[in-house]
Amino acid sequence: MTETYDDSNIFAKILRGEIPSARVYEDAHVVAFMDVMPQGTGHTLVVPKAPSRNLLDAAPETLGASIAAVQKIAIAAKKAFAADGVTVMQFNEPAAGQSVFHLHFHVIPRFEGVALKPHSGKMEDPEVLAQNAQKIIAEL
Amino acid sequence: MTETYDDSNIFAKILRGEIPSARVYEDAHVVAFMDVMPQGTGHTLVVPKAPSRNLLDAAPETLGASIAAVQKIAIAAKKAFAADGVTVMQFNEPAAGQSVFHLHFHVIPRFEGVALKPHSGKMEDPEVLAQNAQKIIAEL
Repeated sequence: MTETYDDSNIFAKILRGEIPSARVYEDAHVVAFMDVMPQGTGHTLVVPKAPSRNLLDAAPETLGASIAAVQKIAIAAKKAFAADGVTVMQFNEPAAGQSVFHLHFHVIPRFEGVALKPHSGKMEDPEVLAQNAQKIIAEL
Repeated sequence: MTETYDDSNIFAKILRGEIPSARVYEDAHVVAFMDVMPQGTGHTLVVPKAPSRNLLDAAPETLGASIAAVQKIAIAAKKAFAADGVTVMQFNEPAAGQSVFHLHFHVIPRFEGVALKPHSGKMEDPEVLAQNAQKIIAEL
């Protein structure tokens, strides 16, 4: 395990615009877009623009900007889907469930009695992701 | 669901020193101590001193100080237990698994092939918690 940053990861490609995403938010430091394999309705990823493998090697400014955006998205997504709660998760290294090696935070609206789906499950219909992105954007 | 802050919660009592904890870290804004019902070896909680129910109503400074401490604890706990990874989780409202209504971040060292235990499981031996706290303190 090298634990270094490799800019061929899929989030780096999304940040560079080489791969499309259903984007909901962008500021100077962070972008947020819909997870293509959502663990629940409205599952959004907050991804800092600065390169870091995960939380362990991130700069303090990167973390501060990320958690501020996580809060924005959490509040907006909870409203957008009339959710009962929000789960925030952040995984570091494969043993913790990290599968893309660019720092990211999962923001997942939660509903009473509805369990999370597995982390890497089924690809969602892009049209559904685009519609969900619009719902969050409307609350931002 | 009132979604307000009630200072009779157990973390507020720990912050006031009314209930003991196996503390690993403290600064002007944050304390960190061992979770008494760990989901894995070295499961630590990062708790801001400022009152907020969860991430949804927290002040920006509170979030910034919290995520900086989460990073410190994550790095130290990974070393302390020679862990393969670290899972960070933060739950908002009961539907998301929140059971104590004062903002807190879970920092959980992870090991290849070892699943997380349930969120509210068995109380750990206080002596084990104290020993684990010392291991993290030694890496801070």
